[in-house]
Amino acid sequence: MPSEGTGREKMRNIRLVISYDGTDFNGWQVQPNAPTIQGTIAEAIRVLTGEKVILCGSGRTDAGVHALNQVANFETNSGIPCENLLKALNNLLPPTIRIKEASQVPSSFHARHAARSKTYRYRILQTPVCSPFLARFVCHYPYPLDHVRMAKAAEYFAGQHNFASFAGAGGPAAEAGRCDFQKQRGQENGVPTGGRRMVRTIFTSRVLWRPRSSMLIYEVRGSGFLHHMVRNMVGTLIEVGRGRLEPGDVPKIMAACDRALAGPTAPASGLFLVKVEY
Amino acid sequence: MPSEGTGREKMRNIRLVISYDGTDFNGWQVQPNAPTIQGTIAEAIRVLTGEKVILCGSGRTDAGVHALNQVANFETNSGIPCENLLKALNNLLPPTIRIKEASQVPSSFHARHAARSKTYRYRILQTPVCSPFLARFVCHYPYPLDHVRMAKAAEYFAGQHNFASFAGAGGPAAEAGRCDFQKQRGQENGVPTGGRRMVRTIFTSRVLWRPRSSMLIYEVRGSGFLHHMVRNMVGTLIEVGRGRLEPGDVPKIMAACDRALAGPTAPASGLFLVKVEY
Repeated sequence: MPSEGTGREKMRNIRLVISYDGTDFNGWQVQPNAPTIQGTIAEAIRVLTGEKVILCGSGRTDAGVHALNQVANFETNSGIPCENLLKALNNLLPPTIRIKEASQVPSSFHARHAARSKTYRYRILQTPVCSPFLARFVCHYPYPLDHVRMAKAAEYFAGQHNFASFAGAGGPAAEAGRCDFQKQRGQENGVPTGGRRMVRTIFTSRVLWRPRSSMLIYEVRGSGFLHHMVRNMVGTLIEVGRGRLEPGDVPKIMAACDRALAGPTAPASGLFLVKVEY
Repeated sequence: MPSEGTGREKMRNIRLVISYDGTDFNGWQVQPNAPTIQGTIAEAIRVLTGEKVILCGSGRTDAGVHALNQVANFETNSGIPCENLLKALNNLLPPTIRIKEASQVPSSFHARHAARSKTYRYRILQTPVCSPFLARFVCHYPYPLDHVRMAKAAEYFAGQHNFASFAGAGGPAAEAGRCDFQKQRGQENGVPTGGRRMVRTIFTSRVLWRPRSSMLIYEVRGSGFLHHMVRNMVGTLIEVGRGRLEPGDVPKIMAACDRALAGPTAPASGLFLVKVEY
């Protein structure tokens, strides 16, 4: 029986919860000749266990984007207890990447396929001068923004929509971790142009103002997100806040399925992957 | 009259309040072939005004040490209004250095000579895992520390003392911005060994525990500080906190004027120059 001796049936499936400062990394996804979160953690696991594992994240994050609780899993033959694994990996990793939790999970758990929702937070600092201690972790925007208009605009994102107007060049492939996306046009299942693959459900979408820290926060929880989608939504909200777009333009932009109508891509530094739910 | 034509009598004296993340700099003091805060700001002023100015800081900070409100001054022939100067310098400087204030002051103002007190804060993070968003700005110490003992020990630092036991190799020269210090021994004006040059007055010295953030804070305000003095005081407080020294050892260590008796130098990342008073 060829399955004997592979040892796969004895493999442990390990789930990691990871926090990282994405500033100095070229995003999550491993790539040659550039430091990435996935590549750095996989290398630490290799040093520790001697195994070249496939580290599967809940989704990619772009260069400069941070995570409070990214989730990933990998299979290993190593018998190292999870508590020791956590400490040893943190000793091997740079201080910009921290493993917060390590636990053994059923072999069926897949960090990407099993993810049911994700929450992102975007931070816009409105102080005249940006503190050097916050510069890596905010988008600094010292000009006036109408927060009430932005909050109104943010509400329109809630629900099931085609987000083709807010998708970066990577399209849905970004989230799928593959690069096989072909832009689709036309009507499909009643959802206008852009194809089903651009349809996502947003559960909550809200703008919060923290006057003490002069921090404007956009928080969005959804079934999934296209490449650059949150940053393009924030770029559009900023256009509304500064008066270049109306809150009511948001549903029109969604309906048009035209990237050119939405605002610019907001900087990566302000974006945090906050939570992945399963 | 030789003073004519130098224009010095028309020079404006500009006072800057500066905040910086010291992580990527080789300290305040300009030096060849290494990025420093002083050098980076002086270069920005040169680009802006065309003048090679002498930027005088209230004192040096070491490599990796941060500042919330460092004070510096320089003389210039430039007529650029202070508000524009601030904006233009911030545009030229990296985001890790921010000018918070720029104002014209009497020619008599000297950022180092006129300083009457300085306040430093040291942050020790006690969580099991150090957040990647705090790693640059704390000393991570996940082991138990007896905060009550540390607070008791900290009280002994208050008052006028000879701090030779807490002085790094740079001695008082570090603060004076010169390197002419020769270690002095013997009795002088009733102050035991180490010389008057090692005597400093500490106005307040206190340990604070912030349970919500698991942050232990040491705050010290004094007439001035020797090279590495705050970090050596903190290293000694940690030795008290972990039980290797008694709070009552602190006055004995001060009296001995022997660096070997005090604790190790705590890491630079936890230290902030908070305030300079004039």
